Amino acid sequence: MDERTTVTDDADAVLEAARRAREAAVALAPLTRAQKDAALLAAADALEGAVDRVLAANAQDVERALAAGTSAALVDRLRLDAGRVAAMAQGLRDVAGLPDPVGEVVRGSRLPNGLELRQVRVPLGVVGIVYEARPNVTADAAGLCLKSGNAVLLRGSSSARSSNAAVVEVLRGALAGTAVPPDAVQLVPGDSRESVKHLMRARGLVDVLVPRGGASLIRSVVEESTVPVIETGTGTCHVYVDAAADLDQALAILLDAKASRPSVCNAAETLLVHREAAPAFLARALPALRDAGVTVHADAAVTAEAERAGVDVVPATDEDWAEEYLSLDIAAAVVEDLEAALAHIRRWGSGHTEAVVSADQRVCRRFVEGVDAAAVAVNASTRFTDGGEFGFGAEIGISTQKLHARGPMGLPELTSTTWVYTGDGHVRG
Amino acid sequence: MDERTTVTDDADAVLEAARRAREAAVALAPLTRAQKDAALLAAADALEGAVDRVLAANAQDVERALAAGTSAALVDRLRLDAGRVAAMAQGLRDVAGLPDPVGEVVRGSRLPNGLELRQVRVPLGVVGIVYEARPNVTADAAGLCLKSGNAVLLRGSSSARSSNAAVVEVLRGALAGTAVPPDAVQLVPGDSRESVKHLMRARGLVDVLVPRGGASLIRSVVEESTVPVIETGTGTCHVYVDAAADLDQALAILLDAKASRPSVCNAAETLLVHREAAPAFLARALPALRDAGVTVHADAAVTAEAERAGVDVVPATDEDWAEEYLSLDIAAAVVEDLEAALAHIRRWGSGHTEAVVSADQRVCRRFVEGVDAAAVAVNASTRFTDGGEFGFGAEIGISTQKLHARGPMGLPELTSTTWVYTGDGHVRG
Repeated sequence: MDERTTVTDDADAVLEAARRAREAAVALAPLTRAQKDAALLAAADALEGAVDRVLAANAQDVERALAAGTSAALVDRLRLDAGRVAAMAQGLRDVAGLPDPVGEVVRGSRLPNGLELRQVRVPLGVVGIVYEARPNVTADAAGLCLKSGNAVLLRGSSSARSSNAAVVEVLRGALAGTAVPPDAVQLVPGDSRESVKHLMRARGLVDVLVPRGGASLIRSVVEESTVPVIETGTGTCHVYVDAAADLDQALAILLDAKASRPSVCNAAETLLVHREAAPAFLARALPALRDAGVTVHADAAVTAEAERAGVDVVPATDEDWAEEYLSLDIAAAVVEDLEAALAHIRRWGSGHTEAVVSADQRVCRRFVEGVDAAAVAVNASTRFTDGGEFGFGAEIGISTQKLHARGPMGLPELTSTTWVYTGDGHVRG
Repeated sequence: MDERTTVTDDADAVLEAARRAREAAVALAPLTRAQKDAALLAAADALEGAVDRVLAANAQDVERALAAGTSAALVDRLRLDAGRVAAMAQGLRDVAGLPDPVGEVVRGSRLPNGLELRQVRVPLGVVGIVYEARPNVTADAAGLCLKSGNAVLLRGSSSARSSNAAVVEVLRGALAGTAVPPDAVQLVPGDSRESVKHLMRARGLVDVLVPRGGASLIRSVVEESTVPVIETGTGTCHVYVDAAADLDQALAILLDAKASRPSVCNAAETLLVHREAAPAFLARALPALRDAGVTVHADAAVTAEAERAGVDVVPATDEDWAEEYLSLDIAAAVVEDLEAALAHIRRWGSGHTEAVVSADQRVCRRFVEGVDAAAVAVNASTRFTDGGEFGFGAEIGISTQKLHARGPMGLPELTSTTWVYTGDGHVRG
């Protein structure tokens, strides 16, 4: 750790950045949609104009990662090219095209005493985002926060520090010519784990923290933060294949949910099959999973079906039921009935997305009321739990908590509300 | 501390209660409105039928409080009579009359691919309420939680332990004959501060904690809880009297906001007067406050006006600007202009309710956009920030935080949502 890092890692630097963000948030809150959109478009143009600078910075990060022996998958997530930078700029333009959530009247009425009451969306204030490798999150999160009237404190991973610094410099340069104060977009000073801790303790200066990334990052933020947190992402998603399932649909849904993009949080991690459907379904599903390159972590009943089908599986332990593999692995069990499936999901699920495949309407209805998750997929793949798929235009993450926001979070989820009541000298007496 | 208390204060007993609450919540979530309302009405009848038993238990609490030299005001808050018990029963009937928030479709659409998407309100699960003296909160909170499909863990103050235990026993007895499991309403075992700590650490079993009471209780829960918290109550509310205020209205609003019920969180604690309005307004307001028994903690400019008016005031320090007196005291300052008032409120306000009195539309508009609070009163008293006044029928508290719920919390604020999407074998591919 060199001297510069030691200095910028101290609590004062983080708190000073948070204070500047707070001031910027005060100036940002009353801006009109036109002012905010103009700033977003200026930022998009600036990013496209600075593509060489951003790629040069990114090359430093990639070089450092390669020298450190980082895995190819991680290096790929880190690496930018002209197309990815153009996509970041287009993302900012897309956000400019979305409606402004601020000022939306959520509810309203005239009270019996004549007071005019309305509940109006307002910005949260200062939003902290703690995230891992992908540098495109830097521009995406900044765009969503600005549009919703929030200042943002960005805390990316140290592996992407040159890229993130270049992107933020470009964005701040563009904002300097607009109504949005540049301090509305800042990197959290410092590279060490300590700087995250200072951010988590900046209660009163930071209104909400959104951790995006691996389970251990999220857990540590949730446990240590005194700033309110919106928990994102862990997805131990289940696909339950009912006795009354259409097996063609069940197979297509299972393969899509598991294998179309295994590294994301809305991918399936556990298959549960009703015992009556098990022989017929598993005789088709186990070879299909094998052909898709998926390793099945099987309970005894699934193992027996696998032997009949001539497919190799590995035995499942309790750890498998809790596991978010994020890889071409799936845990699989045969369950006695729907209630046993619900009990399994209640015990092991992470509350992200649970899917039921059944042609029986009563089964679907009971599954929906019996699971407690951000999303329930009925005869559909878990992979649809996504802000883009839901028509939000963009998302800041997928909340797996119950307070404030649950599921994909778009612009309205980055706001709070204020009750405004207007009278003519009204007193309660 | 007797042996029984020592045993029930341990973490295991609290966690065991939370686990039973969790099971009860699973059974409670799918109940229909008719089933929940029947349980609420049975509980109301039982409470009225057990008035003697509840009053006998309450007499023990009152006796203990008197023996301990508790203040008359606190003993009054603790004391029940037949009328207060009847009001608790009526409160349960009123909640039965409110619409069921569970199942409400908040948003919904048919996606381009034909998936039917809807966002549906669901119960939070297990709600913990930590509260101080008033035993009526026990029945009120239980009623609101049951109606919204939540199990509740009640942690009242030890001063009300006999009353709370009697009320909860009566409610649980009534539930035993209904579709609602009795374990949906439980007292947190144990009397000591430790039992609150165990509750705050029961993440995964308890979905949200709502502290209701004094500032120090709320602060300790907010700082120590790993269970998500909804912060309630602290109200350092301001009344800003603008240069363009109608002074008759300003005076009526000030007196109502400060003196109609000084012990509540929506009472005003600070008066800010535009310097152009100060001489004329304070010449009337200072004697009127004195006549209402209010002590004014004044800055230099207000003190000068007080001397001219022949009214005694006490000098204000910085502590006064931050103070939630909850008594017949008010801090008062003259400000240079609207922006100075907004800066003062941003620095010292608690984000509860801020009032502006002005006939100038531009001033009102700027005040609304410039303050960051749960409620803004325009030409109206701060005292209207209240679930009953807003037409919610009942409230669990007033949130002063920005996430999830802000302002008076009624039944919808005791719910989360689930996204349900229904397809016919839809895959994302």
